Amino acid sequence: MSTLREEALKMHKENRGKLGVHSKVAVRNANDLSLAYSPGVAEPCLVIHEDESKVYDYTMKGNLVAVVSDGTAVLGLGNIGPKAAMPVMEGKALLFKSFADVDAFPLCLDTFDSDKIVEVVKLLEPTFGGINLEDIAAPQCFEIESRLQEACNIPIFHDDQHGTAIVTAAGLINALKLAEKSINDIRVVINGAGAAGVAIVKLLLHMGVKDVILCDTNGIIYNGRPVGMNPFKEEIACITNKEQQQGLLADALVGADVFVGVSAAGAVTKEMVRSMNPYPIIFAMANPIPEIMPEEAKEAGALVVGTGRSDFPNQVNNVLAFPGIFRGALDVHAKEINEEMKLAAVYAIAGLISAEDLHADYVIPDPFDRRVAAHVAAAVANAAMETGVSQKNVNVEDIRNRLLLLVEEKQPVLV
Amino acid sequence: MSTLREEALKMHKENRGKLGVHSKVAVRNANDLSLAYSPGVAEPCLVIHEDESKVYDYTMKGNLVAVVSDGTAVLGLGNIGPKAAMPVMEGKALLFKSFADVDAFPLCLDTFDSDKIVEVVKLLEPTFGGINLEDIAAPQCFEIESRLQEACNIPIFHDDQHGTAIVTAAGLINALKLAEKSINDIRVVINGAGAAGVAIVKLLLHMGVKDVILCDTNGIIYNGRPVGMNPFKEEIACITNKEQQQGLLADALVGADVFVGVSAAGAVTKEMVRSMNPYPIIFAMANPIPEIMPEEAKEAGALVVGTGRSDFPNQVNNVLAFPGIFRGALDVHAKEINEEMKLAAVYAIAGLISAEDLHADYVIPDPFDRRVAAHVAAAVANAAMETGVSQKNVNVEDIRNRLLLLVEEKQPVLV
Repeated sequence: MSTLREEALKMHKENRGKLGVHSKVAVRNANDLSLAYSPGVAEPCLVIHEDESKVYDYTMKGNLVAVVSDGTAVLGLGNIGPKAAMPVMEGKALLFKSFADVDAFPLCLDTFDSDKIVEVVKLLEPTFGGINLEDIAAPQCFEIESRLQEACNIPIFHDDQHGTAIVTAAGLINALKLAEKSINDIRVVINGAGAAGVAIVKLLLHMGVKDVILCDTNGIIYNGRPVGMNPFKEEIACITNKEQQQGLLADALVGADVFVGVSAAGAVTKEMVRSMNPYPIIFAMANPIPEIMPEEAKEAGALVVGTGRSDFPNQVNNVLAFPGIFRGALDVHAKEINEEMKLAAVYAIAGLISAEDLHADYVIPDPFDRRVAAHVAAAVANAAMETGVSQKNVNVEDIRNRLLLLVEEKQPVLV
Repeated sequence: MSTLREEALKMHKENRGKLGVHSKVAVRNANDLSLAYSPGVAEPCLVIHEDESKVYDYTMKGNLVAVVSDGTAVLGLGNIGPKAAMPVMEGKALLFKSFADVDAFPLCLDTFDSDKIVEVVKLLEPTFGGINLEDIAAPQCFEIESRLQEACNIPIFHDDQHGTAIVTAAGLINALKLAEKSINDIRVVINGAGAAGVAIVKLLLHMGVKDVILCDTNGIIYNGRPVGMNPFKEEIACITNKEQQQGLLADALVGADVFVGVSAAGAVTKEMVRSMNPYPIIFAMANPIPEIMPEEAKEAGALVVGTGRSDFPNQVNNVLAFPGIFRGALDVHAKEINEEMKLAAVYAIAGLISAEDLHADYVIPDPFDRRVAAHVAAAVANAAMETGVSQKNVNVEDIRNRLLLLVEEKQPVLV
C-alpha cells in the first residue's frame, strides 16, 4: 500500500489535480477574437435568446455534466468535507471523459443542508446538460435527488444509488441464467440500507423480483420496527418483506436465492451461505473487504460471486454504467433519466456477455471492455426516445458507432 | 456583418461551444484506475482532510476560476438570461486559458436575486481558486461583489468593473506623460454610472486624481440630486464633484483634462471637446459606436483618443488585465484581489510601453502583446505577497518567465 500511496500522491501533485479546461478554438489574433468573443459571440447569444433549446447546439451544455458532492459520504472515508472530496470528484469527471467523451466538471459544495444543495443545483441548470450527484450521505441523498428531479428539466442521477444498482442487476440477470432460475421466483436479501441498498431494492422490484428483504445493522427491516427506522426505511418496509419477517440477516438468508451486500466486511459467514437455496448467488460489495471472501463463498456452495474489487472476478464497477448512461441521455437532450432508461442500461450491460462466454466468473463485463459505454449509450438513448423524455431524435446506431470509434482512438484498451 | 454572423454561428455550432474538459492523466487500465480513482484517490483526500490548504496542491482548485453570470448585462445585449449568456462566458473562459493558462469555467445562474447569487458562489468556494463575476447588471453587481469579498477566502473580481477601470487607468497614465500633466492636477469627467463608470471613479481617486465628476443620463451626479439616484450614486456624490457642480455632461467637460466614456454612442460632440483644457485626453468606450469618433475628437484637438474597438488605436480591452491578474493571484494562493494588486496591474500594463515607443496612438499595449499577462501576473503576485493576502511565497521572476514561455509555446502571436 505504501507504494500506491506514494504513487497516487505524486501523480496528483505533479499534475495539480487530474482535470483541465481547454479551448476548442484558437485565439491567436484579432479575427479569432472577434469570432469567439466580441462582437461575433453576440450571434449565438441572440439565437439562444430567441430559442432556448438552441443552447444545446451552440454551447458546451449539451456535453456537460456536473459532478456534485457535499463530501458527506466519500468512498469509504465518510464525511471528509467538500475540499477533501475534490480528488474523487475530479476522478469521477475523468472517468466520464475517458469512457464516454462526456465533459464532466466537479462541484464540491460547502454545505450539508439539503435545501441549499437543491437550490444550488437548480440555479446551475442553465449551464449543464445533466447532474451526477456523488458521495452524498443517505438518507439526505434520496430527498435531494427526488426534489431535483422534480425541479429540473435535465437528468439528475445519484450514481451511488443507481450506478451500483444497475451493474448489480446486470450481473444478477446473467447469474440467474447460470442458476436456471427465473427472476420472478427468487428471493433476494440485501444487506445495507444506504444509498445503494435502497436503490437496488427498487430496481429489482421494478425488474420483476417478487420477494425482497432489506437488512441493516438492526437486522431485517419490517413495518413498525421499533429501532433504527427513517421515512425511507418505512417506505421500504411497505414494498418489501411481504411476510413481514423479523430477525437478523442470518434469518433472512435461510432459503434465499441471492445475497447482495452493500454493507460491511464479514457480515456473511459460510454457514449463512449454506442456509440459502441451492446455487446461491452472492454479490458481496463491501470495500475493500467483502461481506464474505469469494473463495469462502464458493466453498460454501455459491454458484456465482461478485465483489467490488478489481482483483476478483465479476467486479461490480459503476464505470460500466454512468458514462454510457449520460452519453445516451445527453445525445438525445433527455430531460430526465427514467426507470426505462435505467433498465435499458441493465440489459445492455448484461447482454454484452454472450451465452457461449457466460460462466460463473464472467457474469459482468470487464470495466475496460470498450463496447460497454457505446452499447449502454445507444440503449439508453433509445429508451429515452421511446418514453418521450428526449428532446432530440437520433439514430442510435450512430451513437454506438461514434463512441466505439472515439474510445478506440483515444484510449487503447489494455485489459 | 452577415459574414461575421455566419462565421460565428458556424464556429460555435461545429464545436458545440468553445470549451472542453480534459483529463491530465490517462485511464487505460486497472492500474491507472487505481491511481486516479479508487483506491489510490483516497490518499490525496486524506492529505487534504488533514490540512485543507493542500487542496491547492492536489486538485485543480489552484488553477481554477469560475466565470459567474446571471445574464443580466451581457455585452451590449442587456438582460438576455443565463442560457443565452453561455457563449460569452465560455468565451471569457477561453480567454483566461489562451492568455494566461488559467482553467476557467462558465457558471450561468438561473436567478436575478442577489441573495441567491451570493449564496451559490459562497457554497462553491471549495472548488474554485477564484471567482470572476461577469455581465451582472449594476447596481446589483456592487452589492454582490462586496458581499462575496466579505464572505469568501478566495479572490472575487467583477471584471466589468475593475478590468475596464484598470486598462483605462493604464492608458491614462501613459497619455498624461504625453500631455505632460500630473495625475494630481487633472480634472476627469466620466460619463456612465454603471459597473465600469463607478469602478473607474474609485480607481482614479485611489491613484491620486483629486477632481473627478461622474455623469449619467441625468447629467452630473451631485449630493441630493432629486432624480435617478441610488445608494451607490449617493456614495459617489460624496467622494466626487467637490464643488458640487450641477448641470449636464457638456457643463462638466468645460475645463476638464480627461473624458472617460462608458456610456452611449454620440454622447460627446466636437464642441464639448473644444471646451476642455488644452491637450484633452479622450477614452470613448461605448461599443460598437464610441461617444465620439476618434477622427472627430482629434479634429477638435484631442491629444490622445482610446476606444473599445480593435479597429482604432488604443483599444481598452479587458483581456489586457484579467488573465494576468488571476494568474498572479492564483500563483500565490491569494485570498483576495485588493486595491494594491489592481494598481500593480495598472502600472504593469502602462509600463510595457517604453518612453521611446510611447505616442498618441500607442498609450495602451496591443491585446495580443504576449508580454502583458506575464508582467501583470508577476506584478500582481508581488503586490499580493507585499500586502499579506497571499498564502504562498513565490519568485515573481518564475511566474513571469513561465507564462512568457507558455504563451509562446501555445499561442503564436499574429498581431
